[in-house]
Amino acid sequence: MDVQIITIGDELLIGQVVDTNSAWMGQELGKAGFQVIRRTTVGDVEKEILEAIDAAMNRVQIVLLTGGLGPTKDDITQKTLCRYFDSGLHFSEEVYENILNLFAKSGRTINGLTRNQATVPDKCTVIQNKAGTAPCTWFEKDGKILVSMPGVPYEMKWLMTNEVIPRLKKRFRQDMFIRHKTVWVSGYTESMLAMQLSGFEEQLPSFVKLAYLPQPGLIRLRLSAYGSNEQESEQAITEQNEKLHKLIAGHILAEEDKTIEEQTGEALLAGNLTMGTAESCTGGRIAGMLTSIPGSSRYFVGSIVSYSNDVKRHVLGVSHEDLSRYGAVSQAVVEQMSLGAMRVLGCDCAVSTSGIAGPDGGTPEKPVGTVWIAAAYRGKVVSECHHFTGIREMNVVRASNMALLLLLELIRKA
Amino acid sequence: MDVQIITIGDELLIGQVVDTNSAWMGQELGKAGFQVIRRTTVGDVEKEILEAIDAAMNRVQIVLLTGGLGPTKDDITQKTLCRYFDSGLHFSEEVYENILNLFAKSGRTINGLTRNQATVPDKCTVIQNKAGTAPCTWFEKDGKILVSMPGVPYEMKWLMTNEVIPRLKKRFRQDMFIRHKTVWVSGYTESMLAMQLSGFEEQLPSFVKLAYLPQPGLIRLRLSAYGSNEQESEQAITEQNEKLHKLIAGHILAEEDKTIEEQTGEALLAGNLTMGTAESCTGGRIAGMLTSIPGSSRYFVGSIVSYSNDVKRHVLGVSHEDLSRYGAVSQAVVEQMSLGAMRVLGCDCAVSTSGIAGPDGGTPEKPVGTVWIAAAYRGKVVSECHHFTGIREMNVVRASNMALLLLLELIRKA
Repeated sequence: MDVQIITIGDELLIGQVVDTNSAWMGQELGKAGFQVIRRTTVGDVEKEILEAIDAAMNRVQIVLLTGGLGPTKDDITQKTLCRYFDSGLHFSEEVYENILNLFAKSGRTINGLTRNQATVPDKCTVIQNKAGTAPCTWFEKDGKILVSMPGVPYEMKWLMTNEVIPRLKKRFRQDMFIRHKTVWVSGYTESMLAMQLSGFEEQLPSFVKLAYLPQPGLIRLRLSAYGSNEQESEQAITEQNEKLHKLIAGHILAEEDKTIEEQTGEALLAGNLTMGTAESCTGGRIAGMLTSIPGSSRYFVGSIVSYSNDVKRHVLGVSHEDLSRYGAVSQAVVEQMSLGAMRVLGCDCAVSTSGIAGPDGGTPEKPVGTVWIAAAYRGKVVSECHHFTGIREMNVVRASNMALLLLLELIRKA
Repeated sequence: MDVQIITIGDELLIGQVVDTNSAWMGQELGKAGFQVIRRTTVGDVEKEILEAIDAAMNRVQIVLLTGGLGPTKDDITQKTLCRYFDSGLHFSEEVYENILNLFAKSGRTINGLTRNQATVPDKCTVIQNKAGTAPCTWFEKDGKILVSMPGVPYEMKWLMTNEVIPRLKKRFRQDMFIRHKTVWVSGYTESMLAMQLSGFEEQLPSFVKLAYLPQPGLIRLRLSAYGSNEQESEQAITEQNEKLHKLIAGHILAEEDKTIEEQTGEALLAGNLTMGTAESCTGGRIAGMLTSIPGSSRYFVGSIVSYSNDVKRHVLGVSHEDLSRYGAVSQAVVEQMSLGAMRVLGCDCAVSTSGIAGPDGGTPEKPVGTVWIAAAYRGKVVSECHHFTGIREMNVVRASNMALLLLLELIRKA
């Protein structure tokens, strides 16, 4: 069943806000057997919204709108929906009650503008939003569905999970069963891998697709099956995945569509290990990745972000002599950082980074993008030097991925 | 001049990748006087790409495509463009030279698939991509422009900055001069602020828009002027901004569209101060925010991410007694964390966080979302308890923002 997502808001078009909602929605809809075939973003402009809705209603069965439902004047989605569906508005006591409850919980007092959010279109089913003040509205026209949700991420997520997806599943019989399988591959460039897999690609059934998603230092390979029943999709994915494994056996890091930090967490839990980090150029980003996972306190103890050399020396115990002789971006220093982190934080393993993320700070011997990473576990410490060529943000992401990868390999080999 | 962005890739629709390109493009185009009026995302499907291109070419003057230019079979943008513009392909020695140079730099050897990337459409201007192997192509049809770029963020950014925007500026005379002014407001809910500003909104000239962008704990207010000449836009923004300041004087944190971390960095530089962080529930995210800014090593020295109580005690010197008596999420502990960070890291000021980000770990006395934050500067330490109601990620972002805000206020008042 095809879906189109329409996101509404000038802040998206001028780039003040990054749209993370659409990706999340695509994932959740896919799991439930719905396929997003298009996404459109328009500003808070009636003509543009109407045009996008009309085109979408002619294209697909299900149209999901987010955004433009705030209490302020710049938000016009509801008004525009009334126009499109030729609907009046009325005050909903039920919605008002929900708003009053939310305000009571956080101890805020209600005002007229907030009260207005209880005004809803006549020609729709109102779905209560337990996570916020703007209600969700569900319209039907000629057998097609349009659902309008707030753009605030956690409100949208609450509504999608608890209301919209369950209702869509009830309403539509599935005609396509989508299954994805992602494997993480290291040690190949994208084109090298594609050449290696060219024969494999040619023999894929027509309803199975292979996609390459290069990430800094890694490639995710995704097999997607769009079968007409569950068994067909499952079976095709299993078969093709087995073939894939035979072709690139030693290069597959993980089989699930899990992030590197999730994979690290699982390896640590499996080995009953604790870990910490000592970060210079990654500035706490590895710690942030690890702690983004609920329950990470079971294995992650903490981190020393040693941005300055003083902190490297005084907190992590890096040798003053080595810092002067080799510089902060060196094998000696990055290895001492990992070992220092294990000692100071009292954990079983650690990763560390020291590099020049850019845009400034490079020298002829150590240009921007030079990054030393190390991982330590059970008295063993390994390190690598990388020469990244990206912008600052990219270099930090790469260094973070590679450091966790280094530790993963160290743990797995042990 | 109106622009439409089309992003291409199944990975976007199924949500495996978040589209950050479009936001960046919107910002840069806006600064150059071009207005993005629509964004469309389609999969790697010829029919969908053709349909989106055709609709866009009929709607706007400038169409910018990203994605689908990789060397692998799933990428079909170039083939589809040849079809749309009825063009053949040829091998470009110039592009091949660029690819050879890139490979020589990173010490990789070239293969046939990579060599194929030097094959380009006949009916276009080829723009060299100094940041990657896939070239950028520039098509013209009936006075309209279509530019196709790789989806890899730093390649797209390099091309936009150095080639595409400069060429668009040369090609089109500007008919609209866009100016934005953003102020950061604290201490209001969105609807409270909207009521306070209702009179202000009503008197705005028709070419000036006011938008509310609520963020965890803060609201960004954006004034946008779409004048027919530079002076008109500048003047309107200046006038309206002055009026705005009179209405909500004490609540404006900053006048620029700068992030909290940028504002913190500037305040630290201005006072010649160094800072560090001691993070529990934010897990290094504040350090990550601060170090995302080039040059932050001038004021940011480092961080202790004390996820476990052992690290709080042994590294930061938090009292064992207080940890047992009040728990880790308490005023006593969070204040000792800030003071400990200043002492251990040897810096002039610090922020600290300790809370229950969720989804688990809450108790009746300290439910999920309870976060203590503190800031310390010149022997003074201040702290606050917040009760956030969002999901884990949201709570961490809020806590990070509020902690930096607390320090900013402390420094400014000193």
